[in-house]
Amino acid sequence: MTSSTVPPPEFRVIAVTGIPLVEAGDDVAGQIIDAAAAQGTPLEDGDAIAVTQRIVSKAEGRVVPLDSFEPSPFARDFADRMEKDARLVEAVLQESTRVVRQVGGVLITQTRHGFICANAGIDGSNVGGLDVISLLPVDPDASCRGIREAVHERLGVEVAVLMTDTFGRPWREGHTNIAIGVAGFEPMRSYVGLPDMDGRELTVTTICVADELAATSEMVMGKLDAVPAAIIRGFEYARGEGSSAELVRDREHDLFL
Amino acid sequence: MTSSTVPPPEFRVIAVTGIPLVEAGDDVAGQIIDAAAAQGTPLEDGDAIAVTQRIVSKAEGRVVPLDSFEPSPFARDFADRMEKDARLVEAVLQESTRVVRQVGGVLITQTRHGFICANAGIDGSNVGGLDVISLLPVDPDASCRGIREAVHERLGVEVAVLMTDTFGRPWREGHTNIAIGVAGFEPMRSYVGLPDMDGRELTVTTICVADELAATSEMVMGKLDAVPAAIIRGFEYARGEGSSAELVRDREHDLFL
Repeated sequence: MTSSTVPPPEFRVIAVTGIPLVEAGDDVAGQIIDAAAAQGTPLEDGDAIAVTQRIVSKAEGRVVPLDSFEPSPFARDFADRMEKDARLVEAVLQESTRVVRQVGGVLITQTRHGFICANAGIDGSNVGGLDVISLLPVDPDASCRGIREAVHERLGVEVAVLMTDTFGRPWREGHTNIAIGVAGFEPMRSYVGLPDMDGRELTVTTICVADELAATSEMVMGKLDAVPAAIIRGFEYARGEGSSAELVRDREHDLFL
Repeated sequence: MTSSTVPPPEFRVIAVTGIPLVEAGDDVAGQIIDAAAAQGTPLEDGDAIAVTQRIVSKAEGRVVPLDSFEPSPFARDFADRMEKDARLVEAVLQESTRVVRQVGGVLITQTRHGFICANAGIDGSNVGGLDVISLLPVDPDASCRGIREAVHERLGVEVAVLMTDTFGRPWREGHTNIAIGVAGFEPMRSYVGLPDMDGRELTVTTICVADELAATSEMVMGKLDAVPAAIIRGFEYARGEGSSAELVRDREHDLFL
């Protein structure tokens, strides 16, 4: 047994509470900065800030009326057979580059960003009205960079920013939060080629830090509590200019398309 | 902006350092208890303890010589063509109930526990010798319950325990830690049927808390640092008698088999 007095590595995960209901045009970065300060945990250099897709979509005007989608004949037919809203089906198709699986009424598609998920990530809940839907931001990395730059401008500190969304996955029950946008850090940590404890080469272990940060942040954000942002403090990520494109597997390397 | 003085929800993630290299027959629970105390963060009631598959497999004698596997003709042929070790191929097949994908030399299989992963979760690194491999524990939930009960016996506190392993996933690059065993908590948190902020019913959001805890714990455990356990402190999980079987999707409900 060691009797080390060196404190062990540790990090904190802090909910950002008190952010008002976001509306189109709102300054999300400013709201996070103010709310973090008001609750006694002002943003610090080295923080990672997780923000939900939902408030960014709202602020960026990506919450749109269902009526703005004119269903194609395919969408209308599919919706009729599956008892779905044809306008929603049309929205899913317009936000997608291809349908990965269509089984019964379930549409798993690949979004324009490359993400594979149900209904192209379109969200019908908590978006401020019953006849509107929330589309994913057009460029989640750019949204994250904007928040990061605003934090630097106002506080003079460097933070990492990630945008989270709640996705299902094959083979396992339940959803987890994953990252759909990143800024200011390397989303992947690679152990490729490092020797293991036997001196053998570890060949294929790359950890998706961005998704781990996203999963972590969900634990304080929840789904109903109106906590749309979280601070991960004390975790040493690799600073850099990462992109969410690094998170998407090339089609030719994916065994499950 | 609020001027709340109530501290926001927060939790901590603490590495458990100073655990000696584990060998067959070792008391993993005792090692974690002692190491946590020695570093000044003794286990507390309500902690969630994440422990890597690797040390549990070691302690439970699941690190076995490659030579104990006699390759079948199929394993020998496959290994020859793909330039793999026929004994390892045989071990993967023996630990599996079926092959989900076999593309080139890659074997994605379903383990006896129901988990779908590369090589049946068999690990050839950091297991104390070049000609041995680490198989998954026979019953990871039982292993977790054993640790939980040992903690209760020695310290009189109730903790949640999860066993973590590093898995890849379809569609996204990189690996994350997931839970392959649980004890003392409900691994899923369900929002099914709860009203959202518009009063509409949220229909399908179930969060896999166990996998989020696993992903979180990886961030302090790493792959090379000999930190095989972590404490998540201050996160309010639902106490209960969960099982890792809840994490595995029924075959009939999975679109990607």
